[in-house]
Amino acid sequence: MKNILKGAALLIGAACVGNVQGQRGPQIESPVVHPDRKVTFTLRAPGATSVELSAQFLRDNQALHAGSNGVWTVTVGPIEADLYPYNFVVDGVAVSDPSNMHLFPNERFKASLVDVPGEKPSLHAVQDVPRGEVSYCTYNSKTVGGIRPVLVYTPPGYREGNQRYPVFYLVSGTTDTEETWFKVGRANVIIDNLISQKRAVPMIVVMPYGNMMRGTPNPATPQAAEMYKAFADELVGSVMPFVESRYRAIAEREKRAIAGFSRGGGQSLFTGFTHIDKFAWIGSYSAYLTPEVFQKHFGEFAGKPESLNQQLKLLWLGVGKEDFLYRQAVAFDEFLNEKKITHQSLVTGGGHTWMNARHYLIETLQLYFK
Amino acid sequence: MKNILKGAALLIGAACVGNVQGQRGPQIESPVVHPDRKVTFTLRAPGATSVELSAQFLRDNQALHAGSNGVWTVTVGPIEADLYPYNFVVDGVAVSDPSNMHLFPNERFKASLVDVPGEKPSLHAVQDVPRGEVSYCTYNSKTVGGIRPVLVYTPPGYREGNQRYPVFYLVSGTTDTEETWFKVGRANVIIDNLISQKRAVPMIVVMPYGNMMRGTPNPATPQAAEMYKAFADELVGSVMPFVESRYRAIAEREKRAIAGFSRGGGQSLFTGFTHIDKFAWIGSYSAYLTPEVFQKHFGEFAGKPESLNQQLKLLWLGVGKEDFLYRQAVAFDEFLNEKKITHQSLVTGGGHTWMNARHYLIETLQLYFK
Repeated sequence: MKNILKGAALLIGAACVGNVQGQRGPQIESPVVHPDRKVTFTLRAPGATSVELSAQFLRDNQALHAGSNGVWTVTVGPIEADLYPYNFVVDGVAVSDPSNMHLFPNERFKASLVDVPGEKPSLHAVQDVPRGEVSYCTYNSKTVGGIRPVLVYTPPGYREGNQRYPVFYLVSGTTDTEETWFKVGRANVIIDNLISQKRAVPMIVVMPYGNMMRGTPNPATPQAAEMYKAFADELVGSVMPFVESRYRAIAEREKRAIAGFSRGGGQSLFTGFTHIDKFAWIGSYSAYLTPEVFQKHFGEFAGKPESLNQQLKLLWLGVGKEDFLYRQAVAFDEFLNEKKITHQSLVTGGGHTWMNARHYLIETLQLYFK
Repeated sequence: MKNILKGAALLIGAACVGNVQGQRGPQIESPVVHPDRKVTFTLRAPGATSVELSAQFLRDNQALHAGSNGVWTVTVGPIEADLYPYNFVVDGVAVSDPSNMHLFPNERFKASLVDVPGEKPSLHAVQDVPRGEVSYCTYNSKTVGGIRPVLVYTPPGYREGNQRYPVFYLVSGTTDTEETWFKVGRANVIIDNLISQKRAVPMIVVMPYGNMMRGTPNPATPQAAEMYKAFADELVGSVMPFVESRYRAIAEREKRAIAGFSRGGGQSLFTGFTHIDKFAWIGSYSAYLTPEVFQKHFGEFAGKPESLNQQLKLLWLGVGKEDFLYRQAVAFDEFLNEKKITHQSLVTGGGHTWMNARHYLIETLQLYFK
């Protein structure tokens, strides 16, 4: 590898952003996943006094050890097979791994992704099956205003054919961007794999930007409903018309699903219940509505569940036992039981993580539009 | 803004990657571009002993100053209007700006982007004009092997119509990824704007991953040609068949262009000259071939320039006077003059930067396919 690195270093030396003395030294490979599912993380940081690893497979941060040449390293695990976010903490500052191209798109923090493969190929790993595309688009927002981003997945064969498809609106969480379900959730890879295994039907997946530029109120407060309503207006008033005019979408309620993670779950529940004439499939991944919000905005369903139960093909709730929203999610579940609103629930281990978000996505993709 | 931040912080506290004591404090806004084109950069780093700003608009790194609460800040400028890469250096480690969503995709470093607008709207800024899409695809590589990524821009109206389009293959540089021309070069935004101003013809733009997994030899060495040849084989043998089967491409040499920045420029020159039957438009942005490589691989053109001159609609070279490759690029230009090979040259200020790469893209987009 020596000659390769020398050439690369030569060009990087001049093409890089500014100058960091000694920064473009030997190329670091990080993370390295070993066959026993241990993982070695490495960072070149000759001037740092403390480097830690923070990761969703760790309870507590783990110290990296400084070796010669200012290269810090730690090996952890074995780790349960999954795709995990992690970051380094350099003298107290959370940073992504410079050697890792797989980034966590987010408004407020920088993190990287490490894929620890299991014995069987994972659904989030690219396999040699027919593959869809993810398109970066923009649309003109009538509600929030301005030009806003949206990602649209089209299934394998979309460009070659004339078929119309059901549409799944998939919303990410607080501080996430429209890219997070794509890059961290790997929604496109998962559905490519599930379609090839005939476990999901081919569909269009729309990933909007969930930030309504009004901030994110605590989901336990009535203010959360205002933000949810802004999202519902945006989705129905601007995103859906864009999608249904540009893509071969089936514009029928039984061919539309909406679900999301965290804030996106609250937005999906609110949007679905508000526009029950437009959505027949609703999913909440690690989220909930408060009984108060439900009563205030959807009181008619609480009083007369029959029409809701007849119209909804699926109302699905998933949450992890260690989720900081677990108690509220269970309370919402019990509220729906009490009101005799038909739904399915899944309680898993784990917390408010993208590993769980992906798990719930995989579960529900096998239900939607069937 | 207070209540917004509190809610966001609440969710982030649990949803974030691991725990960084005090890290999720008050939300930082960085960078802030002022009306006088000064820019303030801010980083929360209470445990750091040194924070610097490294940026392509600075000759030397600039120190940030620690204020209360461990928040470091510096204001620089006025800066000439453009879109610039920058990063922080925290105790010697180059990191992207945690508060900035606009990232520089790269294999080996993490940087962020700051857009300093001028008096007129810049071509790289999203404007309210018809907009194309950028699709993330994969294809099966017969040459390098495996499943490889490629980004494909389709122009406004592509999905609604049946028109076929010329195709421009656009290659990024060493350590860049297939995303770099999209996210840093803003190629899609630039061409949307140029099309709307009738300064460029609607076209498909294909952005492949230029890393041939064989490293990047110094472009002055004969080994560089082997890497260029691997790229040419990959592009013609795997990328082009994928693009021309999935997209409404015009499969004629006069409707194919190829250009690239840095390593991608060398790859484009080599691929274009090797497959003169397939490409009529060739661009080199901050790159060159050595006379030795040209003589060895394309000696017939050096001896008989007429056929090359007749077939090529454009051979275009651009380089900045401060580019570390300037001398070699000028030598290549002089070699072409000596061999009477028709070409156009543009020498600008500036160095081996994405500001220049974007400049050369804008120049040549107004020439291709006309």
